[in-house]
Amino acid sequence: MKMALIQMSVTADKRANVSHACELIARAGTEGADMVVLPEMFCCAYENAAFAANAEPKGGFVYEALAGAARENRLYVVGGSMPESDGGRLYNTSFVFAPDGSEIARHRKVHLFDINVEGGQRFCESDTFSPGGSLTLFDTPFGRFGLCICFDIRFQEIFRLMALEGAQAVIVPAAFNMTTGPAHWELLFRQRAVDSQLYTVGVSAARDESASYVAYGNSIACDPWGRVLCRADAGEEILFFEPDFDYVASIRRQLPILSARREDLYELKRK
Amino acid sequence: MKMALIQMSVTADKRANVSHACELIARAGTEGADMVVLPEMFCCAYENAAFAANAEPKGGFVYEALAGAARENRLYVVGGSMPESDGGRLYNTSFVFAPDGSEIARHRKVHLFDINVEGGQRFCESDTFSPGGSLTLFDTPFGRFGLCICFDIRFQEIFRLMALEGAQAVIVPAAFNMTTGPAHWELLFRQRAVDSQLYTVGVSAARDESASYVAYGNSIACDPWGRVLCRADAGEEILFFEPDFDYVASIRRQLPILSARREDLYELKRK
Repeated sequence: MKMALIQMSVTADKRANVSHACELIARAGTEGADMVVLPEMFCCAYENAAFAANAEPKGGFVYEALAGAARENRLYVVGGSMPESDGGRLYNTSFVFAPDGSEIARHRKVHLFDINVEGGQRFCESDTFSPGGSLTLFDTPFGRFGLCICFDIRFQEIFRLMALEGAQAVIVPAAFNMTTGPAHWELLFRQRAVDSQLYTVGVSAARDESASYVAYGNSIACDPWGRVLCRADAGEEILFFEPDFDYVASIRRQLPILSARREDLYELKRK
Repeated sequence: MKMALIQMSVTADKRANVSHACELIARAGTEGADMVVLPEMFCCAYENAAFAANAEPKGGFVYEALAGAARENRLYVVGGSMPESDGGRLYNTSFVFAPDGSEIARHRKVHLFDINVEGGQRFCESDTFSPGGSLTLFDTPFGRFGLCICFDIRFQEIFRLMALEGAQAVIVPAAFNMTTGPAHWELLFRQRAVDSQLYTVGVSAARDESASYVAYGNSIACDPWGRVLCRADAGEEILFFEPDFDYVASIRRQLPILSARREDLYELKRK
C-alpha cells in the first residue's frame, strides 16, 4: 500500500484551493498512491471568520470535488477537513471517500482547539464550531484506519480506543502552529505510534508566513516503533510512504503493550 | 524544592551497593536535596537469579538502610527498587521514606517486563516476580507525587490516572536497555510529561557493559511542556533539578488537556 501526504499551500480562495487539491491528488495517483491525505482546512484560511464564510453541507461543492477526485483517480481520499454546516451548526469535518467515490467515513473534530499560550499562540475554535460526538474508524482492503483531527491527537484516550478497536494506522489532518509545532508535533506523532503500536500520519498545510494563523508544516509519518519514516519541511510537498501492517503485528508481539495492559487495575471504554 | 537523581553504579554485592547508595544520598543531602531518587534494582544485578538471591522482606537490611539514610539526612528517599519477599512471593518494589525515616509509600511494579525484541533485548521478569496490585501516589509539603517502575511507564493509562488524582510529578526508577533506551527512553519521559502536563523523573543505574543486562543510563527529568531539564550520560552521576509546581498549574491553564477531555465520549477509571 502506498500513501501520499499532500502538504499543500492554502489560500483564501476556496475554489482555487479545491482545484489545486484535485491537481495534487491526480499527481499522487499518477505516482501510484492508493490513498491520499489532505491537510486540515485545506479549502480555506485557518480563521474563525473564514470557517463560517466557507462552510458547506455534505454534498456541496467541496464534498463533490473530493468524491470526484477519488473516483477519477481510483484511490482513497482522506479529505483533510472542511467547515461543514449541518442543522444550524458548524463542524470541523473530515470526509473519507473510497475509490468508487462513495463516502466511507466522516470525522467531526471532537476536541476543539481552545488554547492561550502566554507569549505564544491563542485560538478559540469553539467560537465557531460545535464538537463532534464520536470516534472514527474505517476499513480498507489494506487494513483498518483511525481518523482524528489536529487537537484530537493530544488526547491519548482516543488513540488507545482506536487501537483497541483494531486501528493499525491513525490519520491526523492537522494545523499545528509556530508555538506548538516546534515544541510537540514530532513528539506527539512518535508517542502515539509507540504507545499504541501503530502507524501515525500527520498532514499539515504548507507554511504561509503572511497568514493570520501560520501552519507549522512538517507533515510526518511514523512507524509503530516510533521511527520517523518521512517528514516534510515548511513548503508545498507530497510525501509518500508504504505502511506494512505485518510490522504492526510483529511489534505488538515483540513488545507487548496492548495485550499486557492491566485491565484488572484500570478500564478505558467508550461511553 | 530540589530533587536529586542518583545514577549510581551497581555491582553484584548487595551490601556494597547499599553502602554506596547511602554515601551518594548523603552527598546529595549536602548539596541541598530535599528528595533523592535511586535507580530500579539499585541493590543487586538486574538478573532473575540475582532478584531471587537478594530478596528481603520489608524491614530487612536494605529497607532499614534507606529509612536510616532518610532520617540521617533529613530528606525524602525514593528507594529505587529492590526485590521484596512477602508471603512466598517476590515483588519489584519501591519504598519511599519521609525525612523522619517513616515509610510513606510502597509501589510494587504492576506491569512486569516481559519482552522479546527480534535481534535485540529479551527478558522475562515474570519468571521471578509477581505483579503489584495498585497505583501509587504520595504527598509531601511540596506537592503530590506519582510513582511507578520502569516498564510501567509504557502504559499511558496509569499516568493519566495519577494526573487525574492530583500528581504533579511522576517518579520512575527504571532500567531501560541498549535496545529500548536509544529508541524510546527520552520519548517516553517527554511524552508522559506533555500528555498529563506534569514533571517526569527517570532514574537508571549507570551503564555497566560487562553486566548480563546493560542499563542505558541517561537519567532524565522533563517539565510539563516536554522540555528535557537534565539528562545524564552513561556513567555514575548525580543530577539535580528544581520542579516548579506553579508551572504545572500554568501549563494546564494555557493548554487545557486534562480539563478538555471528552468524558462524555470515553471514560478511564481505576477498577
